[in-house]
Amino acid sequence: MLEVLKQLALMNASKKVLKISSKELADKINQSLQTAARKLKELESDELIERTLTKDGQFIVITEKGKRRLYREYLDYKKIFEEDETITIKGKVFSGVGEGRYYVSLEGYKERFKEKLGFDPYPGTLNLKIPKEQLYFRRRLEEEDGILIEGFKTPDRTFGDVKAFKCKVNGIEGAIVLPKRTHYPSDVLEVIAPVKLRNYGIKDGDFVEVEVCL
Amino acid sequence: MLEVLKQLALMNASKKVLKISSKELADKINQSLQTAARKLKELESDELIERTLTKDGQFIVITEKGKRRLYREYLDYKKIFEEDETITIKGKVFSGVGEGRYYVSLEGYKERFKEKLGFDPYPGTLNLKIPKEQLYFRRRLEEEDGILIEGFKTPDRTFGDVKAFKCKVNGIEGAIVLPKRTHYPSDVLEVIAPVKLRNYGIKDGDFVEVEVCL
Repeated sequence: MLEVLKQLALMNASKKVLKISSKELADKINQSLQTAARKLKELESDELIERTLTKDGQFIVITEKGKRRLYREYLDYKKIFEEDETITIKGKVFSGVGEGRYYVSLEGYKERFKEKLGFDPYPGTLNLKIPKEQLYFRRRLEEEDGILIEGFKTPDRTFGDVKAFKCKVNGIEGAIVLPKRTHYPSDVLEVIAPVKLRNYGIKDGDFVEVEVCL
Repeated sequence: MLEVLKQLALMNASKKVLKISSKELADKINQSLQTAARKLKELESDELIERTLTKDGQFIVITEKGKRRLYREYLDYKKIFEEDETITIKGKVFSGVGEGRYYVSLEGYKERFKEKLGFDPYPGTLNLKIPKEQLYFRRRLEEEDGILIEGFKTPDRTFGDVKAFKCKVNGIEGAIVLPKRTHYPSDVLEVIAPVKLRNYGIKDGDFVEVEVCL
């Protein structure tokens, strides 16, 4: 019913009396003539519209009550979309095998993190295991571009591109880092920060919330 | 279904995985448990949400597709409300008995119109008969405050308060004027303007559209 009211509003029926047959409306909302006629009747008996039938046809106008109803709806959507684009992922802290520390300590990545993220990372990562019901946003991170941290070469080997997302863990600014071409288990997140996060009351087995800017 | 998706979004399910039982959702949307469960199933099969059931309960997150669906809706409402608050009333031109001309020519009203409306009115009104399907907005004008044109006294009689609404007739700026305390037939509108509107191709029997700022 609200959908029909909205359609009428999009046809300016809150600003002008609209001439429209139930058939035309049915086509507009992709419903049967019966459905369109019934919905108009409901809108009318709820005083959300006023209808006048003349020999020239059906005339519809949205009442102040109808406009207020639509406005409430508008405010709901505004609330949904006018806040900033951050998501929150929850994960369980665990100890890695020190691989994260190795990579973050490499001069090549270190200087790039500093340039692109604005901080000198503590040499080590906070590893989070993401429970299955939280995996949706973990996958989202794989799809998003994030901040590119370019790879580099040493005489011995090649280090690939990494992407980063600025984030906050328990209010502390940091970044999620993940390889551009993923290969390791996708239920893990690694967080770097300018400080040792484990000094801030975070220990193995804790669940922490990571607020991520996309 | 969209209503449920919106409710989930208001509970931040587009930014965070939400833990909610179907019973809790049912209470939230004032529907039966069966209805809530069915709507969740529909949202899931349309890929507007992702659902995970664990031993701890039901977890829901709104997908990008779901967010895009809500965003389309948001844009519709934005369109409806972010334009200016003008209404359009259609009426049929007819010749009055000269009463309008009499009032507009009175020095008391004339100077007040000039002060409040910013123009020196042509001595005469354009009378419009409002067809019954257009009466909704005619009634709205009676409810709205409009611009107050204060009444005055002469040695002989008292002239009451009038209210005015700035308007445009065929693109020409003018104003609708009506007595604050209405007594004459409510299917008539009187328009004043700095020029003689009938010099602009408007004649008896024509339908004209009056754009009114509320």
